[in-house]
Amino acid sequence: MISNFTFYNPTRIVFGSGSIPRLNKLIPKKAKVMLLYGGGSIMKNGIYDQVVTALKKREVLEFGGIEPNPDYDTLMKAVKQVKKKQVDYLLAVGGGSVIDGTKFVSVAAAYQGDDPWEIVAGDGLKKVKKAVPFGTVLTLPATGSEMNHNAVISRRSTQEKLSFGSDLVFPQFSILDPETTYSLPQKQIRNGIVDAYVHVLEQYLTYPVGQILQDRQAEALLLSLIEVAPKAMQFPPDYNARANFMWTATNALNHLINRGVPEDWATHDIGHELTALYGLAHAETLAAVLPWLMWYKRKEKQAKLLQYGYRVFGIKTQKYSERIDKTIEATAAFFHSLGMPTTLTAYGIDPDEAAERVGSRIDARGWQLGEHHDITGKDVAAILRLSQ
Amino acid sequence: MISNFTFYNPTRIVFGSGSIPRLNKLIPKKAKVMLLYGGGSIMKNGIYDQVVTALKKREVLEFGGIEPNPDYDTLMKAVKQVKKKQVDYLLAVGGGSVIDGTKFVSVAAAYQGDDPWEIVAGDGLKKVKKAVPFGTVLTLPATGSEMNHNAVISRRSTQEKLSFGSDLVFPQFSILDPETTYSLPQKQIRNGIVDAYVHVLEQYLTYPVGQILQDRQAEALLLSLIEVAPKAMQFPPDYNARANFMWTATNALNHLINRGVPEDWATHDIGHELTALYGLAHAETLAAVLPWLMWYKRKEKQAKLLQYGYRVFGIKTQKYSERIDKTIEATAAFFHSLGMPTTLTAYGIDPDEAAERVGSRIDARGWQLGEHHDITGKDVAAILRLSQ
Repeated sequence: MISNFTFYNPTRIVFGSGSIPRLNKLIPKKAKVMLLYGGGSIMKNGIYDQVVTALKKREVLEFGGIEPNPDYDTLMKAVKQVKKKQVDYLLAVGGGSVIDGTKFVSVAAAYQGDDPWEIVAGDGLKKVKKAVPFGTVLTLPATGSEMNHNAVISRRSTQEKLSFGSDLVFPQFSILDPETTYSLPQKQIRNGIVDAYVHVLEQYLTYPVGQILQDRQAEALLLSLIEVAPKAMQFPPDYNARANFMWTATNALNHLINRGVPEDWATHDIGHELTALYGLAHAETLAAVLPWLMWYKRKEKQAKLLQYGYRVFGIKTQKYSERIDKTIEATAAFFHSLGMPTTLTAYGIDPDEAAERVGSRIDARGWQLGEHHDITGKDVAAILRLSQ
Repeated sequence: MISNFTFYNPTRIVFGSGSIPRLNKLIPKKAKVMLLYGGGSIMKNGIYDQVVTALKKREVLEFGGIEPNPDYDTLMKAVKQVKKKQVDYLLAVGGGSVIDGTKFVSVAAAYQGDDPWEIVAGDGLKKVKKAVPFGTVLTLPATGSEMNHNAVISRRSTQEKLSFGSDLVFPQFSILDPETTYSLPQKQIRNGIVDAYVHVLEQYLTYPVGQILQDRQAEALLLSLIEVAPKAMQFPPDYNARANFMWTATNALNHLINRGVPEDWATHDIGHELTALYGLAHAETLAAVLPWLMWYKRKEKQAKLLQYGYRVFGIKTQKYSERIDKTIEATAAFFHSLGMPTTLTAYGIDPDEAAERVGSRIDARGWQLGEHHDITGKDVAAILRLSQ
């Protein structure tokens, strides 16, 4: 008997060119708004001006400088401002880091306990009844944070990177204007495509449980990403390709394809450690881990590897082992086609050292990763040693 | 440049065996509830008892007898009761007709104007600020009404069947327990599969506009329905097959696959007239119209017919006209495999007479149907004459 599940996603999506002025209708007229953003690129590409114009006469505080892999200490400064100035609406303008950070600010500002880090590391969410409402203007398709209830927060002072999820932190709305991606460096488009692709595989490449539609929807996302990737990478930017990429990345992690199915996320868990230790970009860690994890877990994942290979790449030669080899190669080849390396050595990281360090951190936390909860530090080390 | 769109769907889905007791958490404790249902089958199959038990000590009024193709005059009796007894929560227990009817009751009870039929036939929705909240317990997968904001209402006194849509009438929640389908006659399972399949085609089989993911998602639904249909038709019922069918039918019409794409709906528009005039079940009308509409519009729909044929049925012989023939045949063959006829004559209806009557009704309304708004009464007549 297949699993029960719930599905709930109340985020309103406003998609397309010229959508930013809609902010004026989406945010309450009398709201006291905090505008949260990252390194300031929105000042250069005109997005900041569009947003401020759309907000009209509302009182707007600004909080910039949210870094990639948003940091707890940075975000707590925003929380302090929100409380002090009695901000009652947050607007995240940026990519997944800014949106994730805003989710944390949204609940931390309403948190009743002593240590807000407990929201991420413990059961602090129980001490939040109603978060500060927020919306987003997405400028970097990748994480899906604009239409889900999850966030990943880093704490550099302790080298931690942890996630939390709650219905309290669904964005009320997200504006997705593909033209906001036009000023992104090609590398960030590449990273976004890989991130979205791996998001799908984390929710799909496990073992069959008979949820027919969820599998087909996951394959729909993978096929769409493969189709749109070459054009999405082009400069000058192609509107339709950017639009399709943007919408696909959002759908890759909006709680739909993982209903009632097992999930892996070991690639992400290992990747987060690599980011914390070596500062690699999130997507870079995924591409350097995933093919080797597929290889290492080829027996446990056999049925899904065969299905993925056939339905996505049309691979149907006779021997199972050959088909699986080809499927892993096709996945890596897709990443390579975007200029994305798939080894640690490509970043000058010694796989043996990384294996040692990441493996012991996984063990120290007592984590057992993957859909079977059978990937321990030893296995993580074995996977990372392959990444050369 | 592909089209802009918005997406919003706040309905909470609670899916799986044994979910009905969750009603107690989903409906406010102090709500005064009206339970709306259809012909009383829920009394025989135990669903009524499960629902009443779950509602505990809440005050519950009952309104039964909502007919297939819910009638305005019936529903207005419920509206009267809702107002008189100050009901503040509606619970629809049934299929699309009961849910659609409940949507109408929800807004009509809050309507400020003189003639509530204007909600359906005119701009009466403008006179509704806040509808009575409602949830659903779905017992018949087919229409998707459990997770969308549309409703179709009939008025037998004037032989009309019209639809309306509004964000006011999203169910707050829908409980989807596949076991509620176990007591359905096979014919209703068949009808539900055909209805869901045609819902997808109405939103997909038009012309390409470059929304890559929406096409792939539509194909995912079609492939899932084709895969699950034979097992979903079996008795004794197969839980997994019923579950997959139920979830696929919901996703076939929940506003996701039609974002930014042209829609057809001519098969539905023609079908509604056939139901109004001849009393055919909704799905029967769809199967008796769709293949002939595909045939009649094969030039305008050529690109999508070829894509559909290839991606869903694997049809890739050389000549376009041959591929399109085979694709239409494969669609009809799928319906036939479920025991669903695809002609009017199979129901003892004279195609020429139906052509005349439906064609003139379409013209009388001044309707121009389909994705190109080019199907007039004359074309409808030509399509129906083929249905023999």
